[in-house]
Amino acid sequence: MPQPDHISKLGVPDPDGLDDDLRAVWRKCLDKLGFVPNVYSAYSLKPQRLRNFMAMYNEVMLSESGLSKLEREMVAVVVSSANRCYYCLVAHGAAVRLLSGDPELGEMMAHNYRVAKLDRRQRAMLDFAWKLTTTPWLVDDADRDGLRAVGLTETDIFDLAETVAFFNLSNRMASATDMMPNHEYHCLERSN
Amino acid sequence: MPQPDHISKLGVPDPDGLDDDLRAVWRKCLDKLGFVPNVYSAYSLKPQRLRNFMAMYNEVMLSESGLSKLEREMVAVVVSSANRCYYCLVAHGAAVRLLSGDPELGEMMAHNYRVAKLDRRQRAMLDFAWKLTTTPWLVDDADRDGLRAVGLTETDIFDLAETVAFFNLSNRMASATDMMPNHEYHCLERSN
Amino acid sequence: MPQPDHISKLGVPDPDGLDDDLRAVWRKCLDKLGFVPNVYSAYSLKPQRLRNFMAMYNEVMLSESGLSKLEREMVAVVVSSANRCYYCLVAHGAAVRLLSGDPELGEMMAHNYRVAKLDRRQRAMLDFAWKLTTTPWLVDDADRDGLRAVGLTETDIFDLAETVAFFNLSNRMASATDMMPNHEYHCLERSN
Amino acid sequence: MPQPDHISKLGVPDPDGLDDDLRAVWRKCLDKLGFVPNVYSAYSLKPQRLRNFMAMYNEVMLSESGLSKLEREMVAVVVSSANRCYYCLVAHGAAVRLLSGDPELGEMMAHNYRVAKLDRRQRAMLDFAWKLTTTPWLVDDADRDGLRAVGLTETDIFDLAETVAFFNLSNRMASATDMMPNHEYHCLERSN
Amino acid sequence: MPQPDHISKLGVPDPDGLDDDLRAVWRKCLDKLGFVPNVYSAYSLKPQRLRNFMAMYNEVMLSESGLSKLEREMVAVVVSSANRCYYCLVAHGAAVRLLSGDPELGEMMAHNYRVAKLDRRQRAMLDFAWKLTTTPWLVDDADRDGLRAVGLTETDIFDLAETVAFFNLSNRMASATDMMPNHEYHCLERSN
Amino acid sequence: MPQPDHISKLGVPDPDGLDDDLRAVWRKCLDKLGFVPNVYSAYSLKPQRLRNFMAMYNEVMLSESGLSKLEREMVAVVVSSANRCYYCLVAHGAAVRLLSGDPELGEMMAHNYRVAKLDRRQRAMLDFAWKLTTTPWLVDDADRDGLRAVGLTETDIFDLAETVAFFNLSNRMASATDMMPNHEYHCLERSN
Repeated sequence: MPQPDHISKLGVPDPDGLDDDLRAVWRKCLDKLGFVPNVYSAYSLKPQRLRNFMAMYNEVMLSESGLSKLEREMVAVVVSSANRCYYCLVAHGAAVRLLSGDPELGEMMAHNYRVAKLDRRQRAMLDFAWKLTTTPWLVDDADRDGLRAVGLTETDIFDLAETVAFFNLSNRMASATDMMPNHEYHCLERSN
Repeated sequence: MPQPDHISKLGVPDPDGLDDDLRAVWRKCLDKLGFVPNVYSAYSLKPQRLRNFMAMYNEVMLSESGLSKLEREMVAVVVSSANRCYYCLVAHGAAVRLLSGDPELGEMMAHNYRVAKLDRRQRAMLDFAWKLTTTPWLVDDADRDGLRAVGLTETDIFDLAETVAFFNLSNRMASATDMMPNHEYHCLERSN
Repeated sequence: MPQPDHISKLGVPDPDGLDDDLRAVWRKCLDKLGFVPNVYSAYSLKPQRLRNFMAMYNEVMLSESGLSKLEREMVAVVVSSANRCYYCLVAHGAAVRLLSGDPELGEMMAHNYRVAKLDRRQRAMLDFAWKLTTTPWLVDDADRDGLRAVGLTETDIFDLAETVAFFNLSNRMASATDMMPNHEYHCLERSN
Repeated sequence: MPQPDHISKLGVPDPDGLDDDLRAVWRKCLDKLGFVPNVYSAYSLKPQRLRNFMAMYNEVMLSESGLSKLEREMVAVVVSSANRCYYCLVAHGAAVRLLSGDPELGEMMAHNYRVAKLDRRQRAMLDFAWKLTTTPWLVDDADRDGLRAVGLTETDIFDLAETVAFFNLSNRMASATDMMPNHEYHCLERSN
Repeated sequence: MPQPDHISKLGVPDPDGLDDDLRAVWRKCLDKLGFVPNVYSAYSLKPQRLRNFMAMYNEVMLSESGLSKLEREMVAVVVSSANRCYYCLVAHGAAVRLLSGDPELGEMMAHNYRVAKLDRRQRAMLDFAWKLTTTPWLVDDADRDGLRAVGLTETDIFDLAETVAFFNLSNRMASATDMMPNHEYHCLERSN
Repeated sequence: MPQPDHISKLGVPDPDGLDDDLRAVWRKCLDKLGFVPNVYSAYSLKPQRLRNFMAMYNEVMLSESGLSKLEREMVAVVVSSANRCYYCLVAHGAAVRLLSGDPELGEMMAHNYRVAKLDRRQRAMLDFAWKLTTTPWLVDDADRDGLRAVGLTETDIFDLAETVAFFNLSNRMASATDMMPNHEYHCLERSN
């Protein structure tokens, strides 16, 4: 039985009807990636919300930070694992494979990050991501101090927190709309 | 023992050092509300992230939508109740009191929304908010159909989902930073 | 939509038909508080059970103890928060406000006691209350020793345990009957 | 390794020092049962609290009710199973064996009541007991209507609720004090 | 109402139609125990699977090991308690009674092993059994080191793990088929 | 940081020292697969237990059954997803890819089977696998009837149950020993 090929169960508008700035984004994605990520298509149902989502995404994942891009993608996958979010596990699992050149690291983040061999700093970041995702009400000074003890600055902790928070948002948008990832993600950097 | 008066455990920069656009926001808040919401102060540690957060907040909570502003605030409080987020329960509990003129409704949303007298549409929205917050991986077609059955359109469902998703983000920022709400929220519209 | 004004979903007998001793209680409540707490009305469906409930309540909450009345009310609210009991959160949240003169303390107990600034003794008592409420089977010698280490005597631990136990009883009576708190509780000591 | 023979980890006062009324209770227990239930000894640390506990216990478990004494004991064991309370499972498991003459029924209530062969009324009562114990905040009109549909009156529902509530209290007193049941309970009515 | 007397809800074939080797097992059980354990009858629906199950069972529970037979039965009961498996709690609770000569130890393992008086080695084994049963994804080096610290060798840990794993299998076969234990188990070694 | 290359944290004996029958298994694996699955190496610490494990594995996964081999592998992955077992998700995710020729189906089973497009029979089987894994004590007649309603025979239900049960065993052996899957599994049938 062929797997689903819808993008979002709430429907997706014709991209030709989008405003110029968004059509420019679509073209840029096609040029650079060869496809438009389905999360953009799903979100284009409400164009202004898509703009806000992209702005936040770019800042959280791509701007300067004490956390490397790979580390932020690892956090993204661990949060998505806790929330069992298919879209984000596929899309950001691919990103971990690409950025690390290590396909097994992507699988470990998705299935159970505790089996991975990580330095103390990364392990502390992922433990924090899991706790802030699953029991945010239990986070307290001891957790922040634990991050400081492995070298995170106050702004590093802020960036880590916002990465966790952002994927708690995007996981829920994906689950609420039954968003399907583009097929292309499955093929990215599988061999090492 | 006097209760905490920090804003964020990650520290808050001097507002006088912020860029002009943000200082304008500060002034507007002081004019309109009499105070700057602590979430802005806490987020100003990373100014561009604050701008993105405000843009998303304004769109999700204040733009045109099939969900009334009160309904969006009710959703905010129910999500924050599931996540036991002190900051958002205080700040958005106040908003429910203000918008509804009904202090008990705010308490019910914060403590256990199931005791409130709601129409079928609102009850379905809040049940969806609870499920999408606590077990997003279980949301499926039946849940979306349930919302359609009480009159929500596809874009209404999108707006509901993003409201839930947004407070799953902001609850985690508040818990990660131990963000304290402004004292003023406690006093807003308590009598009816 | 006006909020519920029933007292209990199992019905409430006419207070004029109650025995003399209970009618005396009703009169005393009206004199002292200006209203009869709805938990009494709800329980009067079975008068002897009401008598036993009041006797236990008075002993647990009002008799001499190494725990102050405020501390017992704080425990009451934290237990009710774990059990998400609307009636008890409203009624005993008001008591915390009254006894402490600190409205924010009441909100913190109801929403997430971990954000409050407490001395080690109070924090240990509330952690014990949470654990004994949510996972009683895990309570062991280390928990009792933790209470002794912050100064509780054997009878203090007994009193703490019975306060927790009693609200685990009354939370369930309130949830089983959908008991609604008197409107008066919402107004008590809100400003500080 | 011999099993524990303490009564309560908070200590037990010398029964000879108790007030006359309580020493009369002790004598009556010895005459009727051959032993004083350890819950009385443990509670005698605070004599007035013991009196209140006994009054409530006797009313809930032994007074006239639409629920038979066996049914109330079955509820007691199911609540204690959810809370994994050793003392109450042993003491009230013995009561189910005695009252039913069916040792396997007692084991089923303690281990997993869902495997027992019960009429619809009893099954509905036990399902309600489990839900009110483990997730009281989810109890609503549908649950009460379900009990009415199998024949429970409003006062039957009240009695059922209070039985559940009472064992949520006593389970926590037993766990908080590490209360050990009298050895005699293990032997009562094992063969059939 | 008489309790269930089915063996398995999936039916049980006539033992006379079984192959010679299995009929020999049946005869041996009748000779030695006086009955054929219902788990064998239930499993005989697929004879080869029964053979594999018996081979694994005999190796795990009866072969040479650094864990005594009693310790393996204690682990069996604790796993079955976590999984609330009626069949295994009855059958292996009887085994703990028989092997220890201590009926209360059996009850403690079934109801809440944390109340039992155990040496550090046994307590560590049962804590590991509980964790590996309920949250296997959290087991890590610290757990294995904890077992080594109380004297378990690498093969002892292997044997412990397989005992836990095996009862996670058999508990699920019992629950899936609503397997009922033989009445004989209830009577074994109750008095001490 | 290179990922772990141990096989089991409990150590693995030199395969040259194994008995002839096991060395024959090793040779057959090398011939057929190009590698010896690490689960065999890990289990060879106790050779007789390995033999029993292989016998049960072969019967459960490879013998004649009303469930296809692909379906049994899908069940294996869904159970392993519930238990977040890295070894089994990698090894049996590869098997789903190989047998279905559909890499996305493997990902869906591992991340959240509810997003997959399945016929009613397969969906019912996977829902049963999830429930029997996570809350075995809640499985009852309605669950078995649900399987019958989509066409499963009594022996099909038995086979399904044993597949679920077997992976609840093997997931725990993998977690208890921190078993690492062979690198080869990651590469099998990724492109489609």
